[in-house]
Amino acid sequence: MNFDLIAFDADDTLWHTESLYVDVQGKLKELLAPYHEPEWVEARLYETEMRNLKVFGYGIKAFTLSMIETAIELTEGRISGREIHQVIQLAKEMVAADIQLLPHVTEAIPQLAQNYPLMIITKGDLLDQEAKIAKSGLGSYFKYVEIVSTKTRTTYETILNRHGLFPERFLMVGNSLPSDILPVLEMGGYGVHIPHTITWAHEAAEPPSPHHPRFHQLEHLGLLPNLIQSLNP
Amino acid sequence: MNFDLIAFDADDTLWHTESLYVDVQGKLKELLAPYHEPEWVEARLYETEMRNLKVFGYGIKAFTLSMIETAIELTEGRISGREIHQVIQLAKEMVAADIQLLPHVTEAIPQLAQNYPLMIITKGDLLDQEAKIAKSGLGSYFKYVEIVSTKTRTTYETILNRHGLFPERFLMVGNSLPSDILPVLEMGGYGVHIPHTITWAHEAAEPPSPHHPRFHQLEHLGLLPNLIQSLNP
Repeated sequence: MNFDLIAFDADDTLWHTESLYVDVQGKLKELLAPYHEPEWVEARLYETEMRNLKVFGYGIKAFTLSMIETAIELTEGRISGREIHQVIQLAKEMVAADIQLLPHVTEAIPQLAQNYPLMIITKGDLLDQEAKIAKSGLGSYFKYVEIVSTKTRTTYETILNRHGLFPERFLMVGNSLPSDILPVLEMGGYGVHIPHTITWAHEAAEPPSPHHPRFHQLEHLGLLPNLIQSLNP
Repeated sequence: MNFDLIAFDADDTLWHTESLYVDVQGKLKELLAPYHEPEWVEARLYETEMRNLKVFGYGIKAFTLSMIETAIELTEGRISGREIHQVIQLAKEMVAADIQLLPHVTEAIPQLAQNYPLMIITKGDLLDQEAKIAKSGLGSYFKYVEIVSTKTRTTYETILNRHGLFPERFLMVGNSLPSDILPVLEMGGYGVHIPHTITWAHEAAEPPSPHHPRFHQLEHLGLLPNLIQSLNP
């Protein structure tokens, strides 16, 4: 076996997520249309999210608190309680939304699970991420699930230490260069980047050199089993 | 060694937490004083929290969204954006609040850590709980930290399985009967209940019989090392 563990990001790697955030952001823009241009709403929301990241972290609840804060600030407090109530309802709809798996996930994951221990490493709200894994129907293929507050080199090193694994026998698959790929390469692991059609600005970064010996980029998850077979760490 | 692992709840077992929630709830009552009696605000907030528990889970962010929702509902939408902004500020103050360790924690935890692997098992927001552990200065005494979305028998069984441990060699310490003690006893483990001066209504339950062979109640954490020494599982 060429790898001791293969780990996957979840949001926008196994299933659609960012589209849900973009949809809800669209509804916030409609709500604030009497006050501001949509572009300005989007820019200010992003600013608020970045400012709140250290306090509230990732996930739907943090996003909702940032939406409410932005709505109040952009209307100088004139937004009504009724309108803010609509924002909270949007949050509840996000939590309840169906899971839409990405193409090839239902074939590639069971196939890989036959030969490798698989792990999910994801950021976000604890309860929400657990619910999504359950709703996805993929839970039984993943031997381990790690829901973390950030994805730095230290995060990955801590996980590998806990399982007594070496980075050179570890492969991480994800759509975010700064969260899923760069820290893993830095630590000495393998990183497979599968770009998603839409990526949150916060998760954008310069890609590593295409000649990096442990970095690979794929168009979709269906290509992963063959790639993994071809690697000899 | 009589136990393979000793686990602790964190909020109101190692440090004060509920008092922070009660303080902030007091501020919400002041804010809504022009509209309703404080008792009614408290009852409705609790109702909203229970209704939202399955959607938003535990922790400051869920509590804040429930406060906002309650404020809007109780004022029939008349509450202003400016006032809701104050509620969000309260949430940020909660996240930034200093840690107040409970009595005897600074002596008992290092003493136990010399002889046993210690673990924290806590509910709440991932980022917030991690930050509190870091701020508490106790992090180095705990070999493992588990931040979970609920504390059921299955939660504890999953944790023990992961570490290859048996319930009869596991002891859990906490202030909440339904979360920290009853599921652990049911599984076959030891439970040490250290009641806190104030307990959230949701965390109240009938205590087990005082003659239960694996159940103990202590007045404070300083009494724990001697109790543990006296047990022979």
